[in-house]
Amino acid sequence: MGERSRVISLVPVEGIGEISPGDDIAELVLAHAQLADYDVLVVTQKAVSKAEGRLVAAAGPEDRRRIVLSESARVLRERGDLLISETHHGFVCANAGVDLSNVSEGWASLLPLDPDRSARHIRDALRARGGVEVGVIVSDTFGRPWRNGLTDVAIGCAGIAGVVDLRGSPDAGGRTLSATEVCVADELAAAAELAKGKASGVPAVVVRGVDRSWFREASVKAEVVRPYALDLFR
Amino acid sequence: MGERSRVISLVPVEGIGEISPGDDIAELVLAHAQLADYDVLVVTQKAVSKAEGRLVAAAGPEDRRRIVLSESARVLRERGDLLISETHHGFVCANAGVDLSNVSEGWASLLPLDPDRSARHIRDALRARGGVEVGVIVSDTFGRPWRNGLTDVAIGCAGIAGVVDLRGSPDAGGRTLSATEVCVADELAAAAELAKGKASGVPAVVVRGVDRSWFREASVKAEVVRPYALDLFR
Repeated sequence: MGERSRVISLVPVEGIGEISPGDDIAELVLAHAQLADYDVLVVTQKAVSKAEGRLVAAAGPEDRRRIVLSESARVLRERGDLLISETHHGFVCANAGVDLSNVSEGWASLLPLDPDRSARHIRDALRARGGVEVGVIVSDTFGRPWRNGLTDVAIGCAGIAGVVDLRGSPDAGGRTLSATEVCVADELAAAAELAKGKASGVPAVVVRGVDRSWFREASVKAEVVRPYALDLFR
Repeated sequence: MGERSRVISLVPVEGIGEISPGDDIAELVLAHAQLADYDVLVVTQKAVSKAEGRLVAAAGPEDRRRIVLSESARVLRERGDLLISETHHGFVCANAGVDLSNVSEGWASLLPLDPDRSARHIRDALRARGGVEVGVIVSDTFGRPWRNGLTDVAIGCAGIAGVVDLRGSPDAGGRTLSATEVCVADELAAAAELAKGKASGVPAVVVRGVDRSWFREASVKAEVVRPYALDLFR
């Protein structure tokens, strides 16, 4: 069998504008997008953190460093004012995901406490109020070793797979594939970023045409985050 | 200003079938897809390596190990029969990109000698014979530290940016963005993978709707590969 190819579209959700603490992302998305069953909604961490009120005052560099350290489970590398640390969720990223861009002057946004739960919350609200069965991914922009440039990855998901295990599926030549666990959640986040535009204030993208077998209960924390003990590079 | 959002479509190129040494990828794509100016064609490493005859006999595990080592500039980690090494191009990946899947029994595929050149070659042929001005990315499936699952990344590009530098662009709130060098080549490769299907034998995907400012002379080697001396995790 194997996974069949398919046409996919990436549609930015325009017109939502600035998100504030207490805003209801599901409601905003339903007001500005046409969702259908088996769509995947990719929402930025920044939008989710703002809606959830995950904002703290950050007066200066020392304040910021204190916040980054409190968001970190361990610091892996430090260079200048850049800290690469592991967050309490297990994400390895710059400054523990603490971000000064796209928030008001003097404030910093923190990662959601439980991004899988954030995704689930939005998914449940879209189901209840929009009557649609969709997958939801919360995305953030991370660097990585060995390669320049940032890419968007999934920090939370609901209703759509984190990692799809294709091991054991025959390849096109009939031979068994040996190592093809694909992180579709990260690929969906990266794809959405292409449609989002970086500075455009678009907090969400609808991905349509995704393989239906990928829709299931899921978790970035359980599927994508590699435990410390299994990691060869920490 | 900032980058505007946009609708993007990912269309798999169906019907090409098995690629053999000497095959002309540009010709095969032109026969099976409708390309337009400002499309990005993402072609798999496997297709490019086969067309370029980058196949070697791999009789058994020892043979394979010998091949992996000869494709490696340095070995970074070893666990069981998995070697994580840096290739001569500077890519860090499992088994130096040597792959036994989707090739004939007893053979292994090697990475193209110069994947940027491979991409350029296809781009030039599409321009000359198809009359279209497109970007081309050669993609491969890599693992990464800290996160489970593989994702597709760019190993070569032509006519489309590797990394887009948005530093200095104002964010939606008018504040200057501090670190937003985005690796759009990797995001394009990841997006294409969603449309390709893993075991479907689809060697190429057309991405339409990409920001036109990203089309320029480019190179994965020059833009995306982080030099050893600048890497905090090698």
